[in-house]
Amino acid sequence: MTTPTINAETQPGLETIREALERIRPHIHRTPVMTSRTMNEMAGAQVFFKCENLQKGGAFKARGAINAVLSLDETDAAKGVVTHSSGNHGAALSMAARIRGIKAYIVVPSNAPAPKVGAIRNYGGEITFCKPTLEARESTTDELVARTGAVLIHPYNNYRVIAGQGTCALEFIEQVEEGLDLLLAPVGGGGLISGTALAMKGLSPETWIIGCEPKGADDAFQSKQAGKIILQAHPQTVADGLRSSLGDKTFPIIQKLVDDIVTVSEDEIIEAMRHIWERMKIIVEPSGAVAVAAAIFKKAAGFADKRIGIILSGGNVDLDHLPFKR
Amino acid sequence: MTTPTINAETQPGLETIREALERIRPHIHRTPVMTSRTMNEMAGAQVFFKCENLQKGGAFKARGAINAVLSLDETDAAKGVVTHSSGNHGAALSMAARIRGIKAYIVVPSNAPAPKVGAIRNYGGEITFCKPTLEARESTTDELVARTGAVLIHPYNNYRVIAGQGTCALEFIEQVEEGLDLLLAPVGGGGLISGTALAMKGLSPETWIIGCEPKGADDAFQSKQAGKIILQAHPQTVADGLRSSLGDKTFPIIQKLVDDIVTVSEDEIIEAMRHIWERMKIIVEPSGAVAVAAAIFKKAAGFADKRIGIILSGGNVDLDHLPFKR
Repeated sequence: MTTPTINAETQPGLETIREALERIRPHIHRTPVMTSRTMNEMAGAQVFFKCENLQKGGAFKARGAINAVLSLDETDAAKGVVTHSSGNHGAALSMAARIRGIKAYIVVPSNAPAPKVGAIRNYGGEITFCKPTLEARESTTDELVARTGAVLIHPYNNYRVIAGQGTCALEFIEQVEEGLDLLLAPVGGGGLISGTALAMKGLSPETWIIGCEPKGADDAFQSKQAGKIILQAHPQTVADGLRSSLGDKTFPIIQKLVDDIVTVSEDEIIEAMRHIWERMKIIVEPSGAVAVAAAIFKKAAGFADKRIGIILSGGNVDLDHLPFKR
Repeated sequence: MTTPTINAETQPGLETIREALERIRPHIHRTPVMTSRTMNEMAGAQVFFKCENLQKGGAFKARGAINAVLSLDETDAAKGVVTHSSGNHGAALSMAARIRGIKAYIVVPSNAPAPKVGAIRNYGGEITFCKPTLEARESTTDELVARTGAVLIHPYNNYRVIAGQGTCALEFIEQVEEGLDLLLAPVGGGGLISGTALAMKGLSPETWIIGCEPKGADDAFQSKQAGKIILQAHPQTVADGLRSSLGDKTFPIIQKLVDDIVTVSEDEIIEAMRHIWERMKIIVEPSGAVAVAAAIFKKAAGFADKRIGIILSGGNVDLDHLPFKR
């Protein structure tokens, strides 16, 4: 079994992210980088798409969850892992636990969509339903931890998770030989963007890192402006992966290393998502289309003719409830 | 400009298909081959997907159309090309004509779906609408040929088109080092399956070639049984790319080189399509899901534990009219 080499209390640097990639490599896909002439024309730039929608479990979340679970020492791991999640992290943690041969306890709100619950079950996660409130989620999780001794693996406010998410940028920069002028990624709780920023600032400091958010869940934008964490009170967005607030581990990294945060409207998200489906024939979820919307609706002045990298963060959608307008 | 090296009246052999690949290579994508553990489990076999849904124009049709257009001599090419198509061939021929810098005249039935018409326009094809009957299509095409002198490029009953479609199998066999026991492809007019069979029987004669058809458009199945072309009178299938009858150039190749034809139901097509979308996060159209349905619903006895290649033939769907049941 892998020996832990991360001090989980220390902000990961480039070397730690490289170690994370070595650790998770046998268990994840090196996802392809795609390009599209039509999308280049729309963006007025040269766009490279890192297809984490084609990652195992359909999202980048596998990277962080697997890194965190494989980094646990034997004693901690033996008791299993726990998290609360209505989204991709619950499935990713279940997958990671199965790889290590330990239990995953996932607290799921009772109104979670059936496909998400099915994915957690499919990977062998043990589901505990709770009322759909933050309080119920946290108290149910606390009870599970008390009863089982399992280790809580937070979806983003965890340095091992952050280091795992950063591995995506390492691959991306290797795959685009000519380099990237800008790298766009969506911001929910900030795990992906902070891991990305830590990796890129070590490897390619001249690349601008731009976080992309729905206007209806723009807590990262507001937090960066205010210089402190502004909680996301009532997120209103189709991008269900981006409704979380930043954490005390992700915010300082974003504050220091992310060059800009831009926001997009709901219509722009849905239109960008549709363009990706229609032109590139791949499935991206609304959260994954947010950075695409930022590029094609030119949300920052410096995009023209640049080499723009976009992380397509996930592809898990409910085909029975698509947001396209008829 | 490319000098024609094909005698268009001769059935292409492996060498002609290799020349076709050289000719079209600068203009097409070498599409990826994907695998999926979940799909392997469903099929009880090791399945390799050749992703022609990610081809330029969203379908393998670009291969045949570009090969045919680049093979024309200067005199013929100067007058342009013409076809009648409500589907992917119209767009592909427009793309091919644009590459060569000549005109493409596309006869389109007045009830053709808007996205298909849009794709033809997008590639610069000149559209002539006609009544939605075979008679109107053919007479309108004849008038166009008489008026312009343009060369008719049939969607499938044309040896240069067949040779172009065969290039997909050449790439496929290169990309799967361990080889394929079976190769499954859908059958409409037979251009793809006959090109595939010609390429594979030259290159990997031990690979079984299996054509896959909707039960509601099983003219190839019936034709192979009868030993003569049985026309498809009233096709009833969601797989809009597979409603054509075989031609006098495709049928003899299928009769001689295709080892088996299997059929699948409409429900099986839609379920297979949904599995590809959900598990692999790529968009495949109903016609492209027919061979997948044959694999996961095990339509032939010899599939178990085999290495099965499947050509995902296209990804052009109307997102406003998806066939998934709610």
